[in-house]
Amino acid sequence: MKELVERIKAEGVHVGGGIVKVDGFLNHQVDTDLAAAMGAHFANRFREAGVTGITKVITAEVSGIAPALATAQALAAPLIFARKHRSSIVTEDYYHAAVTSRTKGDIVNLMLSRKYLNADDSVLIIDDFLATGSTVGVLAGLIAESGARLKGIGCVIEKPAEGGRARLSRLQVPIIALARIELEGDRLVVS
Amino acid sequence: MKELVERIKAEGVHVGGGIVKVDGFLNHQVDTDLAAAMGAHFANRFREAGVTGITKVITAEVSGIAPALATAQALAAPLIFARKHRSSIVTEDYYHAAVTSRTKGDIVNLMLSRKYLNADDSVLIIDDFLATGSTVGVLAGLIAESGARLKGIGCVIEKPAEGGRARLSRLQVPIIALARIELEGDRLVVS
Repeated sequence: MKELVERIKAEGVHVGGGIVKVDGFLNHQVDTDLAAAMGAHFANRFREAGVTGITKVITAEVSGIAPALATAQALAAPLIFARKHRSSIVTEDYYHAAVTSRTKGDIVNLMLSRKYLNADDSVLIIDDFLATGSTVGVLAGLIAESGARLKGIGCVIEKPAEGGRARLSRLQVPIIALARIELEGDRLVVS
Repeated sequence: MKELVERIKAEGVHVGGGIVKVDGFLNHQVDTDLAAAMGAHFANRFREAGVTGITKVITAEVSGIAPALATAQALAAPLIFARKHRSSIVTEDYYHAAVTSRTKGDIVNLMLSRKYLNADDSVLIIDDFLATGSTVGVLAGLIAESGARLKGIGCVIEKPAEGGRARLSRLQVPIIALARIELEGDRLVVS
């Protein structure tokens, strides 16, 4: 997505270790026009890939919410954002599984209410970054547990070097990225 | 806002202590049509109150993001969601202040990057609930520190019994709520 690639080139800050901050338009300040354009773009790309009949868009709080909400709006479907809880006390009302936060380093429980997801649902996962694929993998596991069908995975920015796409290929659904970031030495290459 | 009042009456769950769960359309699953309608409604109500020239909409992660994003879209302004960090290590790059989470009970730092907010900005705060007003009060303090002008406060659901509106009246800006929840004994009254 050309507009997004240009913004990452202009404003993305490589803070070391392959972590790129895009706080100016995605992860802290959100460019609302760009978010709406990303949502429409995801909707079109999944339609072109033959993905139809989506009943729920799922993301994990926090930074996935804006692009996932825009995508859900474009598909006229509800959004569910999985909650993160530090407490290990979870109730039967939720599908839940532990995930390690890469940027913060701590372990949290991702939780999805059983009330809002079941075997009648067809689901897209949308998230801000696809790196190792661990968060998306955990969400996919919760979706499988619910009996819902995962139909596609969308990420705003993919970091191919971290292998997430290969690790998620077992899910056998289209994986669509709007931009890619790679490191060549210290230089950021955005495409 | 009639549609919202009906949804709270139909789906709001009083879990005790005056805490009402609206996870079916606002705090976990988000009804995207309702979110867009809330955004348009806030934009109209603030316009009617004489609030114009908004350059930034500000909320605190997590549950304020969806209604705040919809409002920012309706106003063609960027959204900034203040990040919450448990760590007390904060850098000079951020305005920050501690706030106590009512539902989780822990203390977190709310952080707003200095890069995205300054004395040229005119700001709306949008959040999901207005109870004691503590989160909104802390956000207003960070906005004041930046030199930006706070022009209005919007909350999806107000709980008048907790006194937030009175506590925030010192800010001398319009405070707009889309719905109100009050307890009469054990009975929830929504208006």
